[in-house]
Amino acid sequence: MSCNKLCFASDYQEGAHPKIIDRLGETNLLQSPGYGTDEICEAARERIRTACGCAQAAVHFLVGGTQTNATIIDALLMSYEGVIAPDSGHISIHEAGAIEVGGHKVLTIPHQLGKIAAEAVEAYCKAFEEDLNHDHMVKPGMVYISQPTEYGTLYSLQELTELSQVCRSRQLYLYVDGARLAYALGCRENDASLKDLARLCDAFYIGGTKCGAMLGEAVVIPDPALIPHFFTIMKQHGALLAKGRLLGIQFDVLFEDGLYEAIGKTALEAAEKIRECLASKGYRLAFASPTNQIFITLRDDEYNRLSQQVEFSFWEKTANGQTVVRLATSWATTDSQVEKLMKVLAECSPKEQK
Amino acid sequence: MSCNKLCFASDYQEGAHPKIIDRLGETNLLQSPGYGTDEICEAARERIRTACGCAQAAVHFLVGGTQTNATIIDALLMSYEGVIAPDSGHISIHEAGAIEVGGHKVLTIPHQLGKIAAEAVEAYCKAFEEDLNHDHMVKPGMVYISQPTEYGTLYSLQELTELSQVCRSRQLYLYVDGARLAYALGCRENDASLKDLARLCDAFYIGGTKCGAMLGEAVVIPDPALIPHFFTIMKQHGALLAKGRLLGIQFDVLFEDGLYEAIGKTALEAAEKIRECLASKGYRLAFASPTNQIFITLRDDEYNRLSQQVEFSFWEKTANGQTVVRLATSWATTDSQVEKLMKVLAECSPKEQK
Amino acid sequence: MSCNKLCFASDYQEGAHPKIIDRLGETNLLQSPGYGTDEICEAARERIRTACGCAQAAVHFLVGGTQTNATIIDALLMSYEGVIAPDSGHISIHEAGAIEVGGHKVLTIPHQLGKIAAEAVEAYCKAFEEDLNHDHMVKPGMVYISQPTEYGTLYSLQELTELSQVCRSRQLYLYVDGARLAYALGCRENDASLKDLARLCDAFYIGGTKCGAMLGEAVVIPDPALIPHFFTIMKQHGALLAKGRLLGIQFDVLFEDGLYEAIGKTALEAAEKIRECLASKGYRLAFASPTNQIFITLRDDEYNRLSQQVEFSFWEKTANGQTVVRLATSWATTDSQVEKLMKVLAECSPKEQK
Amino acid sequence: MSCNKLCFASDYQEGAHPKIIDRLGETNLLQSPGYGTDEICEAARERIRTACGCAQAAVHFLVGGTQTNATIIDALLMSYEGVIAPDSGHISIHEAGAIEVGGHKVLTIPHQLGKIAAEAVEAYCKAFEEDLNHDHMVKPGMVYISQPTEYGTLYSLQELTELSQVCRSRQLYLYVDGARLAYALGCRENDASLKDLARLCDAFYIGGTKCGAMLGEAVVIPDPALIPHFFTIMKQHGALLAKGRLLGIQFDVLFEDGLYEAIGKTALEAAEKIRECLASKGYRLAFASPTNQIFITLRDDEYNRLSQQVEFSFWEKTANGQTVVRLATSWATTDSQVEKLMKVLAECSPKEQK
Repeated sequence: MSCNKLCFASDYQEGAHPKIIDRLGETNLLQSPGYGTDEICEAARERIRTACGCAQAAVHFLVGGTQTNATIIDALLMSYEGVIAPDSGHISIHEAGAIEVGGHKVLTIPHQLGKIAAEAVEAYCKAFEEDLNHDHMVKPGMVYISQPTEYGTLYSLQELTELSQVCRSRQLYLYVDGARLAYALGCRENDASLKDLARLCDAFYIGGTKCGAMLGEAVVIPDPALIPHFFTIMKQHGALLAKGRLLGIQFDVLFEDGLYEAIGKTALEAAEKIRECLASKGYRLAFASPTNQIFITLRDDEYNRLSQQVEFSFWEKTANGQTVVRLATSWATTDSQVEKLMKVLAECSPKEQK
Repeated sequence: MSCNKLCFASDYQEGAHPKIIDRLGETNLLQSPGYGTDEICEAARERIRTACGCAQAAVHFLVGGTQTNATIIDALLMSYEGVIAPDSGHISIHEAGAIEVGGHKVLTIPHQLGKIAAEAVEAYCKAFEEDLNHDHMVKPGMVYISQPTEYGTLYSLQELTELSQVCRSRQLYLYVDGARLAYALGCRENDASLKDLARLCDAFYIGGTKCGAMLGEAVVIPDPALIPHFFTIMKQHGALLAKGRLLGIQFDVLFEDGLYEAIGKTALEAAEKIRECLASKGYRLAFASPTNQIFITLRDDEYNRLSQQVEFSFWEKTANGQTVVRLATSWATTDSQVEKLMKVLAECSPKEQK
Repeated sequence: MSCNKLCFASDYQEGAHPKIIDRLGETNLLQSPGYGTDEICEAARERIRTACGCAQAAVHFLVGGTQTNATIIDALLMSYEGVIAPDSGHISIHEAGAIEVGGHKVLTIPHQLGKIAAEAVEAYCKAFEEDLNHDHMVKPGMVYISQPTEYGTLYSLQELTELSQVCRSRQLYLYVDGARLAYALGCRENDASLKDLARLCDAFYIGGTKCGAMLGEAVVIPDPALIPHFFTIMKQHGALLAKGRLLGIQFDVLFEDGLYEAIGKTALEAAEKIRECLASKGYRLAFASPTNQIFITLRDDEYNRLSQQVEFSFWEKTANGQTVVRLATSWATTDSQVEKLMKVLAECSPKEQK
Repeated sequence: MSCNKLCFASDYQEGAHPKIIDRLGETNLLQSPGYGTDEICEAARERIRTACGCAQAAVHFLVGGTQTNATIIDALLMSYEGVIAPDSGHISIHEAGAIEVGGHKVLTIPHQLGKIAAEAVEAYCKAFEEDLNHDHMVKPGMVYISQPTEYGTLYSLQELTELSQVCRSRQLYLYVDGARLAYALGCRENDASLKDLARLCDAFYIGGTKCGAMLGEAVVIPDPALIPHFFTIMKQHGALLAKGRLLGIQFDVLFEDGLYEAIGKTALEAAEKIRECLASKGYRLAFASPTNQIFITLRDDEYNRLSQQVEFSFWEKTANGQTVVRLATSWATTDSQVEKLMKVLAECSPKEQK
């Protein structure tokens, strides 16, 4: 297909975990009612509720991350409210204004490697309250964060707890974008479980698309009374699949026998090997990220050499003209691919070039 | 699974055509770039362009019908424009206000078995122009129709041509919702081809979800200059899949060796048999519909008897208290299912009950 | 100025009641804080609360009718809700889609001379509830009516009470557009007072622009807890005047010593005389309307003759090609103007022409 | 009325220039058609066209600044476009999200005393174009600036010319918010005339509310073909006054015999005196601003002393805990008020307190 080089550009470059492909085949001719009202969807919801330790949670399956964010944010906010987010957040930059199309301002706070701290949220709210003109301003109504973040970093349980406390004291909803949640849950450094998220957040989603599914994200709303008529809201946002079971089947597989976390672990082991190789070969990590995304800073010559054999993502230009690129592993990354990559990394090693 | 009865409730109750399932398995581990920029998507686009006789057309893959309608209508209309539609149209009733969420009014014209005629559109526009207050009113900017309609009826080539002429003379875009287009294209009574649609419309979509795909709709814009930046517009509407190839693969299969039309024919042959059986057994069709949807009017006793063995869709209550129900066939309807249904229809025949 | 003929085209063709002009002059150099937080605004609010017999009501001053409707409807409805309105309602036709821009569908019910009955609303809601697909449809969330209606007709207290009862039993808000409310309150046939409106509605507005003010509408929300942060909502809709006192001053004048109702009475006495003259001279009223708007049906020759001397509004064409026109009186209509009009009506009388 | 102290809180604390009050009285009983189609509106438009040296310009009268900004930005931008603005811009902070309600993101650039430079806009656009993910981002479609800015500063003709050049080369619209434009035009330091704005911008508005009118802003669109159907767009935004002449009359007065610039000059002379007094008495200006807004930094004791006798606006807290406050002069500021203020300033002088 398209990739002749070693492909580490993203975690969505293959189809789906083979077990999902199998299950789609096995269930293909079963007949079921539409729009996620079928038994497999219900079974998948039940598995997720169990994993979240939250028997009463509402679980809804949507198609993609931008759609999910826009739908949830629109469902939770009043018309005069905005959403606080790190300025590096997906909704702040890379959703083509989908939140604004829903009528809501994204209120940004400068990020620290993709994260914002409880104190920064508290300071924002305090400044808002104290501003004598705040009735002319967008009222913060919720906090959006990603776990892991766009920088591959993790919020600790302590940090999430503090954010949750600030949100509750300031009457803000806390919403977590878990597009890559498997790569947090499967990470040794992670100490925040699904149960913690269900306890600390008002809504979050468990990412499928980047974590082994073909497509699909599972929204968890621990207190279902929070969003009445979410089915209709989904329909209105074009987020309701006629063949909803397609999503149910996938999450049913992903939450059977711990597959979701296992997928995370596979990717993280691969990432770990690559990181060690990078370090030993003299590459410079742009910053530390413990999950499946690895960010390295390359000079032009390094970039040119490496990009002939490896496909990665452009991340950003640095102030001194170097390039930060991202390598991502996934459930589909094989030992053989990792070996080949390490070989290339060794050949192109900055150490060798000096 | 969920259906213990004979299931004729809809054309989206199974998974996908087996060839699609096979192809998803075969391509699963291939690596490709995201967001529909891969080679399979491009191959599928090329097949669709060929089928439409329109080498320069833009072809985009979206996820579902409501999303597609909302995205296209928003992309084509100016903020002060609305969309003319039959009052029975999907966007008028069953999309939970998705068009209004985009800021546009649906301007309804009374339908005739799901259709609106060119003269009715012309009359609407004339009345608008002549209304001295029309600057205070929503300006019609496009016409939305479905082929086949929600009533299973078809626009003839003549009717489509007339609508196209009115639209062009009135500077309205003509947009066709082809959620069930396979069941028009495969129909003996149909004389409007994909090439005709590409010639007569400004945009239309070829339905996948209800025509053999797991999910997905292919938008065709014969003149790509009509909508610049459609990629970003899709993103903004949450309509851009990271694993866009999932849609490309399906349409590549559907447009290989005429599968899409063949799917339509299979369903229509089954529908034809059922219609003949209904007629011979004394059932009353609510109205004539030549495609894969069959509408019958049932008294309460008939309804109760039939609904014990067959699953169908509620359509509407008649003025005299009877119920109109819908049976739908699809690519997945087997001879055996049709035989069983005919047996049930014979047993429950109104003739027998008198 | 523009009108060389006798001008009965509308009730907004002059400036403002002279007492308002005087007061604007007297208060001109007083200094006050902005955005409606000044003392005169507060005094005007208090007068309106008293007139409505509702000491706790929130009263807000907005600029025009379309803006007020759009702001209130947006403030009251959830994203998935629509507003039931007569198909003749101002929001249905003549607000250029302002409600849809706010994301809400106008759910129309056929009008009876501008009105809808409680039973029709109940029937709409019942049909919605019973529709098995209603989760795919826009949920009715409020009822919009006008008092008097666009046809110059009035809801009786009995009719309003019934509408209120249906709304409360169906959990719909009841909102009354009172753009011409003075012409209801001043009408002999009217039996619904401001106090009744405050008791029966969730929100309504007291029209200024068409009832003696330069501009401005006063929204009354009997239970202020219903819409928190309405100040910010107004700002967001561009409905907050920096010099808010301009509106407060006008409503302070209008609600001093019963001026608002007196304005209505003046206009209605003029309308009454004109109606009597029309009847005696053989003109045909298009329908009965007891308020300040008079609708007459004219043949082309009658239309041409009358329109040379009188300026009126086009209303609609009848099926048999005649024209319905509207004459409107207002606070500014003088005895002399009425005399002149009656003279012209006599000269052009259909009786004379036969 | 409300202000017992010396009121320098804003430039919208009185009614309107006395000539406007007079004219409203004189024209009050003239009858005219609605919605700004009358002769006085047309005369006012013609005066503005002449002042702008732009005979073909479209001129529209709207009610307030937020409404005007939201309407123009919505009219000019495509759905996928956003507006570049200084982060201190009115639309960025103090319009309660009105731009986002219209579906558009405000793309902020750090301000320099309220201004952004052409190079910063160019750099933003360049970075956008070079970002490989820019199709997932909001495309910049226009630049919004204020003249004078929210900091009372001015763009020079040179700066405006450069901004215009960047905008034209990058296909961005240039839009200028002239809420306080009189205080730029009347300023000695200003070298950008109305004719320059008409030549360099795609749209701008001449502020009335803060420059001597009761309310109202005049939008100038040098090339009317740029925004077809603006009348309907205004209606849709609730920005169309039934008694549109109220705005026309005011701008007719303001643009007769140079009143608009004269108003600016009056305010600026007062501001100049106050600035000189502040300097001589040892007050610290927060920053230099040549127009009618004066910003001073006060310690707590200074603040408390001064605020007992003078009403001013809170602007912001400084990092070291002092307070920046704003004094504003206007057309209504009298010599006597200035004298009194200078007396108070002398009494409370920081020099005296040491």
